[in-house]
Amino acid sequence: MVDRVDLNADVGESYGAFRIGCDEELLGQVTSANIACGWHAGDPLVMERTVQLAFEGAVGIGAHPGFPDLLGFGRRNLQISEPEAKAYVLYQIGALDAFVRKTGETMQHVKLHGAMYNVVSKDPNLASAVIAAIQEFDPDLILVGLSGSPLIKLAEERGLRVAHEAFADRAYAPDGSLVPRTSAGAMITDPAAAGDRALRMITEGIVQASDGQDVRIHADTICIHGDNPHAVSFARSVRSKLESAGIKIQPLRDFI
Amino acid sequence: MVDRVDLNADVGESYGAFRIGCDEELLGQVTSANIACGWHAGDPLVMERTVQLAFEGAVGIGAHPGFPDLLGFGRRNLQISEPEAKAYVLYQIGALDAFVRKTGETMQHVKLHGAMYNVVSKDPNLASAVIAAIQEFDPDLILVGLSGSPLIKLAEERGLRVAHEAFADRAYAPDGSLVPRTSAGAMITDPAAAGDRALRMITEGIVQASDGQDVRIHADTICIHGDNPHAVSFARSVRSKLESAGIKIQPLRDFI
Amino acid sequence: MVDRVDLNADVGESYGAFRIGCDEELLGQVTSANIACGWHAGDPLVMERTVQLAFEGAVGIGAHPGFPDLLGFGRRNLQISEPEAKAYVLYQIGALDAFVRKTGETMQHVKLHGAMYNVVSKDPNLASAVIAAIQEFDPDLILVGLSGSPLIKLAEERGLRVAHEAFADRAYAPDGSLVPRTSAGAMITDPAAAGDRALRMITEGIVQASDGQDVRIHADTICIHGDNPHAVSFARSVRSKLESAGIKIQPLRDFI
Amino acid sequence: MVDRVDLNADVGESYGAFRIGCDEELLGQVTSANIACGWHAGDPLVMERTVQLAFEGAVGIGAHPGFPDLLGFGRRNLQISEPEAKAYVLYQIGALDAFVRKTGETMQHVKLHGAMYNVVSKDPNLASAVIAAIQEFDPDLILVGLSGSPLIKLAEERGLRVAHEAFADRAYAPDGSLVPRTSAGAMITDPAAAGDRALRMITEGIVQASDGQDVRIHADTICIHGDNPHAVSFARSVRSKLESAGIKIQPLRDFI
Repeated sequence: MVDRVDLNADVGESYGAFRIGCDEELLGQVTSANIACGWHAGDPLVMERTVQLAFEGAVGIGAHPGFPDLLGFGRRNLQISEPEAKAYVLYQIGALDAFVRKTGETMQHVKLHGAMYNVVSKDPNLASAVIAAIQEFDPDLILVGLSGSPLIKLAEERGLRVAHEAFADRAYAPDGSLVPRTSAGAMITDPAAAGDRALRMITEGIVQASDGQDVRIHADTICIHGDNPHAVSFARSVRSKLESAGIKIQPLRDFI
Repeated sequence: MVDRVDLNADVGESYGAFRIGCDEELLGQVTSANIACGWHAGDPLVMERTVQLAFEGAVGIGAHPGFPDLLGFGRRNLQISEPEAKAYVLYQIGALDAFVRKTGETMQHVKLHGAMYNVVSKDPNLASAVIAAIQEFDPDLILVGLSGSPLIKLAEERGLRVAHEAFADRAYAPDGSLVPRTSAGAMITDPAAAGDRALRMITEGIVQASDGQDVRIHADTICIHGDNPHAVSFARSVRSKLESAGIKIQPLRDFI
Repeated sequence: MVDRVDLNADVGESYGAFRIGCDEELLGQVTSANIACGWHAGDPLVMERTVQLAFEGAVGIGAHPGFPDLLGFGRRNLQISEPEAKAYVLYQIGALDAFVRKTGETMQHVKLHGAMYNVVSKDPNLASAVIAAIQEFDPDLILVGLSGSPLIKLAEERGLRVAHEAFADRAYAPDGSLVPRTSAGAMITDPAAAGDRALRMITEGIVQASDGQDVRIHADTICIHGDNPHAVSFARSVRSKLESAGIKIQPLRDFI
Repeated sequence: MVDRVDLNADVGESYGAFRIGCDEELLGQVTSANIACGWHAGDPLVMERTVQLAFEGAVGIGAHPGFPDLLGFGRRNLQISEPEAKAYVLYQIGALDAFVRKTGETMQHVKLHGAMYNVVSKDPNLASAVIAAIQEFDPDLILVGLSGSPLIKLAEERGLRVAHEAFADRAYAPDGSLVPRTSAGAMITDPAAAGDRALRMITEGIVQASDGQDVRIHADTICIHGDNPHAVSFARSVRSKLESAGIKIQPLRDFI
């Protein structure tokens, strides 16, 4: 029986004078940090500070590459080619890694951001390019991606370590995909309900879809969204629900 | 007696559809390449291709960090703080390094670009920040900087390997500094004259200043400017003058 | 019978130290100029100079708004919302207009650039947003768009002045759309052939599609691509072919 | 005796997903709004919304051009040339004006932002370039600048309408310049003290400098800083102090 899971959150999204999120508190709750790399969010000073905070909290450090679209926060699809996808991911991983080095730690994982996460999940050519980028940089990196997605399956075939990601605060369609944010009921806003969903995903490998039926899901890591005012209390609630049920909350590097 | 020198040039300055320079030909003439890192010029695809070209030509690969000022090509001073200087340099070195890894080579050197080169040469606080960035990333990197500058002296004191850079196509003031580009006679446009100056710098350690007097200068590497239409023939001319005099043209890693 | 046509070209695409195109020569051949507004290309100094050149040559001045994607030169689709489309177009028209004012002329037209041109041609919601932006700025502006496209039809319905644009150097599909640049035979590279096609478009309202059949097309303006080394001789060739056939080459403001 | 003053604040500084300030509340307190134009802060959607809010509140609308330095929020000096200064200001004023048009109002004023405000205040060449930009765009615009600065004096000589700006929450040096933010005591954080200072500036034309002596100052408009959590209550406090003393708070257009 599965008795451990990772909790991950997007952090380091501030940019110059523009402050976003509550990284310090959030990093006290999660075990893996997806750190923005300056393209859709984040800047070198923010990256340096966030890496340091994650390191001090024994939180697994991950690169969080996104589209070159600061204005759209990386949430709008941009039609890039495969060579662009590979080079854009390499650039951003490398930039973050410069700040990881001095901690003595190595980077734990890579998770794509926003629209890049979504499109690469499904597009086999872009997926292949991103996998190649990660393997070229460091074949020991873990790729965090949508649970059961073509990206994750292809990465496994190519020999990359992967972490299936599930969302405690998002509704799922019967085919296992996420209900788009723009649909009604797409977000689970009740922390208790989210905690229950997370627990069932881990212990039973099941999530109840939006039409009521049970859908199989594998969850190595649960995403905690940081971009809302209640992120920290939400994270605390999910975490405490899991811990009371005997689930250990551990960074990916401990079990993938 | 000094019988070898490095020739370096700025390459990889194209950006998307914006094409600059004649990198392939120039990389056939020089032994060290300063590759733009996407901030004042360059983009991830250009970086990947330029690193590959340099590697194939056995040209030493260097990062060429600049100010975040694509519009000004990094040539305008931007008043940044010391933590910013350190983080900006780390970010850019790391980004380039992601493309160097797969060649199996390691990065040879770091040379700052444009206005950042000029201001850090003279400002001890920014110099200290940049040196710290390089040492944090990889203490074996060579810092290329203005010959005899406070930056280079401080870097030597701090135990960093340094390369004193001289300019064959620029006039020098009697105090050993460069005559500003905006002054008349600042540029040596005759390739033969530039070749003679380079040769004398290397063999005698002397350059004739703009007022006619001889000034001492130490040159580990000679800069070949790539941003003019005659860059390649200029490079060829300087190179052939040096080689006919028995000077070996070698990458910095061979003798620093 | 139609005996006059406008020739338009994209100009003002340089950005800082990055030089593109041969604006001065091209502006001697065309009658309408699409001037980049700093988002996919162009910068304030380039805009100022290009507006001045167009004005001196009695060339109709147009804004050429594009996606906020300098790295992709505005050629990659970016999924923007309708309010974004409207505000992005307004911003860019306004910015260019600041340089048009002092000439005493008024802006003649707006033509979208690259991927924005393509997607807005077909998407009725984005088309509606762009039309609203133009009407809000100045209801007398002429919208240049793909001949016969939904955008142009909608703009006419809304009472905007429109110019149907045809391409002398692009292959057409039987449905009147452009053969994608990535397909073989998409580009007509022979200036004489392009001149013949332009002439037939204007005098007969016909273009031969890629499958050999004749397709009806209405051409108020013919696009001259400026981003290739032969742009100017190409323009000269098309222009001279048209003029020898008695077609007058005039800016849109003279006949729309 | 002077019995009226304008209160101005920087607004519209959000950028995409990055939210800054409390524009709605602040626009309820001030009579002139300096709206960021997308270079150091602000984006087209934010500009559109902010212009609309200002218009609805009968607040005078002003352009707030800054350096092209989103990462530094326009607060770091960037060494630009005079033609760049002129073109950068024109571009940004024009961009904002596109959103002002549909309100039926005209733009009231221009106030430079951050480091551009500071450097242009003192540099006669840049000042001349900025004045030319404003006069070229619309000779009726009011230039808001540091009270008594060379910029303001030159603008008056050139026939531009000007508004002398004073700061209720900043300490003044004996020569009438602002004590740099980095110095101790540079900021007046007590709203009551700030209100008293504002009142004395207006009614007596005097501010007490940091060394205790009285310094003459002319204040047409008082700046309310919006980038702190207490901005709104601060604004309310200053405003109520002035109103109880019989000072009318009016937009610049009413009395300049």
